[in-house]
Amino acid sequence: MELTLAQIAEFVDGELKGDGSIKIDGVAKVEDAKPGEITFITNPRYEKFIDTTNASAVLVGKDFPETSKTVIRTENAYFSFLKLLRYFHPHVEMLPEGIHPSAVIDETAVIGKNTRIGACVVVGKNSVIGENVQLYPGVVVGQDVEIGNNSLIFANVVFREQVRVGNNVIIHSGTVVGSDGFGFAREGEIYHKIPQVGIVIIEDNVEIGAGCTIDRATLGATIIRNGVKLDNLIQIAHNVEVGENTVIAAQTGISGSTKLGKNSIIGGQVGFVGHIEVGDGVTVAAQSGVSKPLPPNSVYFGYPARPIMQAKREEAAVRKLPDLLKRINELESKINELTK
Amino acid sequence: MELTLAQIAEFVDGELKGDGSIKIDGVAKVEDAKPGEITFITNPRYEKFIDTTNASAVLVGKDFPETSKTVIRTENAYFSFLKLLRYFHPHVEMLPEGIHPSAVIDETAVIGKNTRIGACVVVGKNSVIGENVQLYPGVVVGQDVEIGNNSLIFANVVFREQVRVGNNVIIHSGTVVGSDGFGFAREGEIYHKIPQVGIVIIEDNVEIGAGCTIDRATLGATIIRNGVKLDNLIQIAHNVEVGENTVIAAQTGISGSTKLGKNSIIGGQVGFVGHIEVGDGVTVAAQSGVSKPLPPNSVYFGYPARPIMQAKREEAAVRKLPDLLKRINELESKINELTK
Amino acid sequence: MELTLAQIAEFVDGELKGDGSIKIDGVAKVEDAKPGEITFITNPRYEKFIDTTNASAVLVGKDFPETSKTVIRTENAYFSFLKLLRYFHPHVEMLPEGIHPSAVIDETAVIGKNTRIGACVVVGKNSVIGENVQLYPGVVVGQDVEIGNNSLIFANVVFREQVRVGNNVIIHSGTVVGSDGFGFAREGEIYHKIPQVGIVIIEDNVEIGAGCTIDRATLGATIIRNGVKLDNLIQIAHNVEVGENTVIAAQTGISGSTKLGKNSIIGGQVGFVGHIEVGDGVTVAAQSGVSKPLPPNSVYFGYPARPIMQAKREEAAVRKLPDLLKRINELESKINELTK
Repeated sequence: MELTLAQIAEFVDGELKGDGSIKIDGVAKVEDAKPGEITFITNPRYEKFIDTTNASAVLVGKDFPETSKTVIRTENAYFSFLKLLRYFHPHVEMLPEGIHPSAVIDETAVIGKNTRIGACVVVGKNSVIGENVQLYPGVVVGQDVEIGNNSLIFANVVFREQVRVGNNVIIHSGTVVGSDGFGFAREGEIYHKIPQVGIVIIEDNVEIGAGCTIDRATLGATIIRNGVKLDNLIQIAHNVEVGENTVIAAQTGISGSTKLGKNSIIGGQVGFVGHIEVGDGVTVAAQSGVSKPLPPNSVYFGYPARPIMQAKREEAAVRKLPDLLKRINELESKINELTK
Repeated sequence: MELTLAQIAEFVDGELKGDGSIKIDGVAKVEDAKPGEITFITNPRYEKFIDTTNASAVLVGKDFPETSKTVIRTENAYFSFLKLLRYFHPHVEMLPEGIHPSAVIDETAVIGKNTRIGACVVVGKNSVIGENVQLYPGVVVGQDVEIGNNSLIFANVVFREQVRVGNNVIIHSGTVVGSDGFGFAREGEIYHKIPQVGIVIIEDNVEIGAGCTIDRATLGATIIRNGVKLDNLIQIAHNVEVGENTVIAAQTGISGSTKLGKNSIIGGQVGFVGHIEVGDGVTVAAQSGVSKPLPPNSVYFGYPARPIMQAKREEAAVRKLPDLLKRINELESKINELTK
Repeated sequence: MELTLAQIAEFVDGELKGDGSIKIDGVAKVEDAKPGEITFITNPRYEKFIDTTNASAVLVGKDFPETSKTVIRTENAYFSFLKLLRYFHPHVEMLPEGIHPSAVIDETAVIGKNTRIGACVVVGKNSVIGENVQLYPGVVVGQDVEIGNNSLIFANVVFREQVRVGNNVIIHSGTVVGSDGFGFAREGEIYHKIPQVGIVIIEDNVEIGAGCTIDRATLGATIIRNGVKLDNLIQIAHNVEVGENTVIAAQTGISGSTKLGKNSIIGGQVGFVGHIEVGDGVTVAAQSGVSKPLPPNSVYFGYPARPIMQAKREEAAVRKLPDLLKRINELESKINELTK
């Protein structure tokens, strides 16, 4: 698997500064890398390691500062790192071929070619699983579920009835897709359950982390659009829609019927109220609380979420408040003296 | 299943304005409804859709504005919608009758009449499952557990030993009931585990969302009272008590030994410190941090949670802070001039 | 199991004030205790119960106020309570001996002596499970996993491939260890998955609550050090390290590559940004948002997290803001009059 630095530079379409004959046999983090390994620096926090890393070479961006270290400069150093990571760590199938005899597949279910199904998996009536799918042990697929081709479903994921999952989808362990939305009609002090008769649609190329909960719609569909990436322990309520290629960090919650745009970046532990529309290309900082619709291409922060420049100005002012109190006390005594 | 609008008006005890002979064959959301369907508007945010919806009729409240649209006015339009939803979407059993042969039921366990048990369910020693219960695939019931009649337990829920669940309870997938409370006695730098020998009691008519964790008591019981509704990913610590008909939104956490009153409404991502009592009829806004006991019938907001009017006044003042800084700078220079 | 108070005083190395011949047959919470039981008061909030508890005696600290109640004073009353709790509630094994026939153990896996494996457990290729381990029903152990001796793994926990778990570890139900880190290389609007080829190391004497997600490292290892205690629904991202004997309350999230020191106490619903180092002996209050490295032995609070004295001063000032606005208005009109 060994490559020379010259070969690597060609492979990642980069510009090598250093000895192209050096041999590389692995990729490692900048703090851990040993001679013979290549590493990468894409986060400015780690630039300081350039002089101390034991790596034989470092992948960096085109605008990385001058250095005496052997470097390969590329347009997108993180993407180059990804290519090398895939080269040095080729994918290994963890799930044995075929359908484990302990799996309980309803006789009406349809299972595609080359699909692997682990021990103690349950697949319900009329469900259709595509080709090259992997269902790890303990996955429970309800009735009338559709799962597209090449999707990878890790252990103990649950799909309730009628959920539709696209192609090339990855869902990590313990996630629940299609649980009932949280809907009740109040009559005096009693809450009556609203039947949740809608579905969940997960489009292609979506990745969903571990321990997430994606509720089905009351009516219609909860929709996770093409290319969306969700981290762990995220709550998606009934009738929510998350737009294409939007990325959401861990422990964020989106309340019922809220629609997020595409190409947005949402931090961790953010909360969205229900029934709002958030524009495309939005960034929301971690732990923000979004209580109103957000315009496209905006950056929001805080609780409640405000445009980031405003929020930071206000935060800075809060830092000065104790001092401000003193200044106002002084002003008042000066005025009192003057008016005497 | 088709009904005329006149029949529907009678069914929901409402007042029809429009042609009673129009035939309706389904219910839909106001944005999605097609001719032949009825919809509802109960949230003011959606009132704007009254003129554009393709629905043949709209369920609205008694005080909904005058409109040329065909409407049925009722006292509780959302509850009327619920009745129609149940009519047009009658409940369909998803779990086959009987006990799946792959289920592992201890020989000392007692299973009630008409109870359905899915594949790969495990029921421990001396547990008693009532009548008409449904245990979906992958549910694990520990020893000495009691589950009442008509309860619906979705896939991969876990009950630890001695947990008691009432009648008509619904618990969604992946939820854990009866895990150990988080209790340690510190001795120097070491934490010694406090055995958690209490139980969890879930009373009747409770609904618990997906991915929740309900810890058992250290001693005594963690109690979820009659009619409580919990959304997804909620943390209930040891010895917590949630009062009757209280509703809690997703990702909220309640620390050990805290007691919530009845008929309260708690937003999402709220945190409660331990060892406090919160009165009945309390409303706490999303993302609030409750660090002190709250009086009954109060409305709290913020971090730390304060009475909502106070919190909003303070929030509004923070919005003015950067401007305030300028005004104080001006005041100071004016005073300096005056005192010269 | 009955003990006299004199025997208990000796057992916990405490000083009895009262009648040593009184017989005690159980431990209970101060509000619930009945005659014949002993209770404890270690939290000042509960001191008021000293006069009303029905317990026959109360364990208290050396500095507890004078009282006419029968008390046993010890150096560490909570630890004494723990000793009594263990005495009156000896551990009962809940999982039957041996390996349940429905468990699916790969033929290459190695299972230690006296290890108990419940129904529908799955153990993958080449995994090594130590002695006296308990794997409750529905646990899924991937390939090449190592679990040390005496570890207790509750129902439906998932271990992905290559995860290493130490001795005397407890992991509660539904927790996922070794899910992929959340890493993508962006190319235009598309996110390409970074293979997560690192592992998770959980050292000895760790306890992890229910519903947690512990991601594997991108490269290298995510590490939970000896003696760490994690509550429920906690998110640990890729390459995070949590130092020895650090305790973290529920629903906290730690972003990628952040390192927490040892002997720290982290409240619930706290968020840490990625790529920071937090010193040893740190306390972070609940719901704080930590966006910068924290020095050792510091106490932080708020959003964003600040030293607690500063944060409280600023919070107090915010409380005064509406009043401040009035004072500034008055100052301005006074100045205007003066300058006229």
